[in-house]
Amino acid sequence: MTTKLRGACLIGQSGGPTSVINASALGCIEAALAEDCITKVYGAAHGIKGVLDDRLYDMTLEDPAELALMKYTPSSVLGTCRYKLADFLVDDTDYRRILDIFTKYDVRYFFYNGGNDSMDTCSKISSFLQLNNYECQVIGIPKTIDNDLAGTDHCPGYGSAAKYIATTCMEIYRDAKVYGTGSITVLEIMGRNAGWLTAASALATHKGMGPDLVYLPEVPFDLADFITDITKVYEAEGDVLVAVSEGLKDKNGTYISTYFSDLAKDTDAFGHARMGGLAGSLAHFASTKLPAKVRGIEFGLIQRCAAHVGSSTDIEEAYLAGKAALEAAVQGFTDKMVAFKRAPGPVYKCNTILIDLIEVANVEKKVPLEWINAAGNGLLQPFIDYALPLIQGETELPKEDGLPRFASLKKIVATK
Amino acid sequence: MTTKLRGACLIGQSGGPTSVINASALGCIEAALAEDCITKVYGAAHGIKGVLDDRLYDMTLEDPAELALMKYTPSSVLGTCRYKLADFLVDDTDYRRILDIFTKYDVRYFFYNGGNDSMDTCSKISSFLQLNNYECQVIGIPKTIDNDLAGTDHCPGYGSAAKYIATTCMEIYRDAKVYGTGSITVLEIMGRNAGWLTAASALATHKGMGPDLVYLPEVPFDLADFITDITKVYEAEGDVLVAVSEGLKDKNGTYISTYFSDLAKDTDAFGHARMGGLAGSLAHFASTKLPAKVRGIEFGLIQRCAAHVGSSTDIEEAYLAGKAALEAAVQGFTDKMVAFKRAPGPVYKCNTILIDLIEVANVEKKVPLEWINAAGNGLLQPFIDYALPLIQGETELPKEDGLPRFASLKKIVATK
Repeated sequence: MTTKLRGACLIGQSGGPTSVINASALGCIEAALAEDCITKVYGAAHGIKGVLDDRLYDMTLEDPAELALMKYTPSSVLGTCRYKLADFLVDDTDYRRILDIFTKYDVRYFFYNGGNDSMDTCSKISSFLQLNNYECQVIGIPKTIDNDLAGTDHCPGYGSAAKYIATTCMEIYRDAKVYGTGSITVLEIMGRNAGWLTAASALATHKGMGPDLVYLPEVPFDLADFITDITKVYEAEGDVLVAVSEGLKDKNGTYISTYFSDLAKDTDAFGHARMGGLAGSLAHFASTKLPAKVRGIEFGLIQRCAAHVGSSTDIEEAYLAGKAALEAAVQGFTDKMVAFKRAPGPVYKCNTILIDLIEVANVEKKVPLEWINAAGNGLLQPFIDYALPLIQGETELPKEDGLPRFASLKKIVATK
Repeated sequence: MTTKLRGACLIGQSGGPTSVINASALGCIEAALAEDCITKVYGAAHGIKGVLDDRLYDMTLEDPAELALMKYTPSSVLGTCRYKLADFLVDDTDYRRILDIFTKYDVRYFFYNGGNDSMDTCSKISSFLQLNNYECQVIGIPKTIDNDLAGTDHCPGYGSAAKYIATTCMEIYRDAKVYGTGSITVLEIMGRNAGWLTAASALATHKGMGPDLVYLPEVPFDLADFITDITKVYEAEGDVLVAVSEGLKDKNGTYISTYFSDLAKDTDAFGHARMGGLAGSLAHFASTKLPAKVRGIEFGLIQRCAAHVGSSTDIEEAYLAGKAALEAAVQGFTDKMVAFKRAPGPVYKCNTILIDLIEVANVEKKVPLEWINAAGNGLLQPFIDYALPLIQGETELPKEDGLPRFASLKKIVATK
C-alpha cells in the first residue's frame, strides 16, 4: 500500500487488568502521536462501551510525562469492560452505533487490547465496517495474565504476573516452613482452564524455595492421589507447600471446588469460616487425613496488578506490541493481532509478527502435557526454559514517598 | 562495668515471621563475631525450643557473604517457635534445662528477637539465671509487624509490612475501580487487637489511591454504620474500597467475624464458598443491602514476609537494633529491650534506647484514638506523619534469574 490512510486513531482496553496493559496502550499512543497520517489520538472510556456511549478521551491533551508513567501503571488507565458483541447478522444495533461514532470522529485506526474475547470483538467490528465500506484498519494487541492466546509464544501481562507469583511463592515458602511443627499450606492461583499462572509457581521450586506439589487444570485431579502426594511430602519433610489452579477438575469435568460446599460452615477458633475457595477446602480436607496445621491462601486480585514487581522484559515487550500494532496498521494491515515469535538460539529474544484475528478469537492455549511430570503434580524443565526468560529484569516504576508513582491522566472527553 | 564478661553468645528468633527479623539477627551476629570477649556465636534452632532440644547452630561456620544476605531474607532463618514458658515458681523444668544448656555452651550473652510474649520469655529466663547465680546478659530485640510493643516508637518489621500493604492497596485500588460498574471490595488486614497494619492502608489513601473507608479494632464496629458509610461512597463514586482489621469487634467486645458463621454455606457460580474470613462476610453482607458486585480479599501470610517490597528504613533500623543489643550486653546491660526513640525536628531520625523488659512483656500498644477520625472510618494526618517515614527507601535485595536471592545457611549443629 503506497498511500497511508489519513484519520483518527482509537485505542480501547478490555477484559481483566494486567500490570502492563497500559504499557501496550502507551506504545500505541506514542507511535500514533508521532505519525503524520494520524490526525487525532483517542482512548475509549471502558473499552467498546466508551464507543457505544460516545465517550472518548482526547489523548493529545495529556501531559507527555504523565502519559509516560503509563508504562509502569497497572490495570486499565482508560477503564475496561467485559462486553460481548452479538453476531451482527442477528442484531446489528451496537455495530451501527460503532459505525456512527467512528464516522463522527473519523476513526480510521482502531486498536483493541485484550484477550481472546476482545480479539473476537475486534474481528466482528472489522467485518461489519468492511461490509459497510467504511475504511478502517483494525489491529488487536494481546493482553492476558492467563497466557492462553493462540498463535503467540506468550502474552503481555503473563511475565509480570508469573514474576509476582514465583516471588511470592518463595516468600511464602520461607514463612510456611519456619515452625518445623508440620503444616500443609495450599496456594490457590488464577487460571480456570489453562494452568500457565499456577505453573509459574514452579519457577520458585526451581530456585529451591517453591511448592512441593503443583496441580494444573490440564491434568484431571484426583483427591485420593492428592492425599497420597501430600502424605509423602509430609512424612519426608514435615511442612508441605502446594499450589493449585482455581480451575482444577476431576476426570468427569466436575470442578473440585464444587465438592466442598457442605464443608463451608466450619469455623476456626477466631470465628473465621475455614473455607474460602478451593485452597481452604483442600487444606481442610487434608487436615481430616493428616495431623497437620493447615492453611489455604488465595492469591486473589493482587496477582494481576502487582506492578511493583513487574518484569521489565514483559513491560518492554508490551510496549513493543502496542507500537508494532500502530506501525502495522499504518502500513495497511488490518484484521490482525500482534503476536510474539521466539527467535531460535540460546539467548532469549522475541520478535513481533502478525497473525489473523480469527485464529485467536475464542481459542484457548493450554500448557503442553509434555511439560508436566508423569505424576501430574509438577512441571518439567521445558516449562522452566520457556517461562524463566519472561520474568527477567526489574521494573523502573518511579517511587514518591516510598510508594509507586502511577500515571494520573486528565482524561478529557472529546467533543465533536 | 570495667571488665567485659567473657563467653559465648546465643541468639534466638521467636513468634511470627517478618521481612526483617533476620536483619536484626545479622546485626547482632556480625557485631558478636567482631567482639573479642565473645568466644562463640550460636543461633538457636526454632527459638527457645532449640535450647530445650540442645540444638544450636554454630554461626562462626557460616560463609560471611551468605550470612550478609540475611539482611534481605524474610522469615526466621534459624526457625521460630511459639512457646510460652511456665512460671518457674510453679514448674521450673524448662528453666533448669535452659540453665544446663547455657552452662554446657558457656552462654553468657542471650538475645531473643520477638514480640511481647518473647520479651516475657526473656525476662523470666533472666530472673531464673540470676536466682541461680549464673551470670548472663539478657537483651530483647523487638520484632513484630503488629507494631504493638510498648515503650518504643515503632517495631522493626512494621515499616516493611506497612509498605507492602500501602503499595498493594494502591494496586488493588487501580484494579477495583476500573470497570466503573459499581463494586464493593473489602480488604482484610492482620491485627487482632491493634490496628497499626490496617491503618497503613491509609497511606495509600493519602496518595489518592487507597481505601475509601478504614476500620480499626480500636473503635467498636457497628454493622448499620458500616452500611451507611459504604452506601454514601457507593452513591457518590460507584466503586467502594474498604479496609478492615481482622480483629474488628462490636461495642460488646464480640468479634464481628463470629456474626457470619451461618452465611458460610453460600457459594458463587464457580462453586467457591463466598465466605472466607471477615472480608468475604462483610462483602457478602453489603451485597444484601446494595446492588453491587462484591469481593472480599484477605491479605494473608504475604503481608508479613513480602521482603521484595521491604522498606530500607525498616531494614537498616532492624539491623541497628540487633547491633545495639549486642553492644548494650557487652557494656554490661541486662534485662533490657532495645527500643526506638524518635528525635525531635522535621527530619525523621530514630535512635536506639534501652527499656526494661518488664515494661514490654505482655503489654499491647494500640493506635491512639486521636489519630482516628470522628466517624471511626479513617485515619488523620498525625498517623500519616508517624507512618510515612517508616516506609521510605527500597530494599537492596539481590536478584538471581529475576527472583530474590535469599540467604541459604549451612546451619551446622554445634556439639560439645
